[in-house]
Amino acid sequence: MDLEAIGIIHSPHQESQNTPLQPHLAAGSEGTVEVFPQFAAGLKDLGGFERIWLLYWFHRAAEPQLVVTPYLDDERRGLFATRAPCRPNPIGLSAVRLLRIEGNILKISDLDILDGTPLLDIKPYVPSFDVFAVQRIGWCGSSKKDRRVADGRFEGPGGKSPRHGGA
Amino acid sequence: MDLEAIGIIHSPHQESQNTPLQPHLAAGSEGTVEVFPQFAAGLKDLGGFERIWLLYWFHRAAEPQLVVTPYLDDERRGLFATRAPCRPNPIGLSAVRLLRIEGNILKISDLDILDGTPLLDIKPYVPSFDVFAVQRIGWCGSSKKDRRVADGRFEGPGGKSPRHGGA
Repeated sequence: MDLEAIGIIHSPHQESQNTPLQPHLAAGSEGTVEVFPQFAAGLKDLGGFERIWLLYWFHRAAEPQLVVTPYLDDERRGLFATRAPCRPNPIGLSAVRLLRIEGNILKISDLDILDGTPLLDIKPYVPSFDVFAVQRIGWCGSSKKDRRVADGRFEGPGGKSPRHGGA
Repeated sequence: MDLEAIGIIHSPHQESQNTPLQPHLAAGSEGTVEVFPQFAAGLKDLGGFERIWLLYWFHRAAEPQLVVTPYLDDERRGLFATRAPCRPNPIGLSAVRLLRIEGNILKISDLDILDGTPLLDIKPYVPSFDVFAVQRIGWCGSSKKDRRVADGRFEGPGGKSPRHGGA
């Protein structure tokens, strides 16, 4: 299962330190998604969506760790119960705001993603597919930390580099 | 950017035909997620979450197509404005219901995923991260089809096979 970058995310966030943890904490954090020209035909009709999922490669994440101390707690938690980037398959997922599309460039807000991140996929955010009323949210329901931005705890020494694409 | 399967999704859906299009159309569709033992430590604390994101490899999808006729419309749409599986990086995303965890086996409902699908990642579904009130949902707002299940239109001749893992 090989991936190839379909684009690059250009963001004001140059390092993990002070990067917003999630899109809802990144209001006003604007940037662009450059979709490589050979994939631009797939952007047709996307402009009608207010919000889009970006799937991307955590290219600067540390090696996988199966138990982590997440930003929002002070206890060790199972990795799959967190959104930490040091995952066996380091795929990130963010529902960002789509401001407009100019050719193969998407203008984006609510960016919680590092500059230079390889883009893997774009999907439309559709409430009937993506919005669920849930009652139980595990440790997040009694989260002990009120952090809004990252530090360097999950950053790798050199980061992982994509083997394909233009990153 | 290489992926490895971290588990396998066991589902009642043996072929695309009649598989629910999305989790909200798959109530009562139960199965299991087998997480390979070497990753099971990462499941700690996950049981507290009512719903989880599964990221998986569309192992039986056709080759990428940048313009498709989606199930819910009768017009050709840009691939990235749809959730069709024939993507440059064929990564699927579903927010399924977590019923319980027994060791390295997750009992799941609302499964819209084919049997034998390689699992790439699990993330907790957290409303503050994942739920957004959106007004504009593009062509989905005037969707012309009321389909609830798939047919074989996006299925490949032999499908893509994972190079790693147990699938």
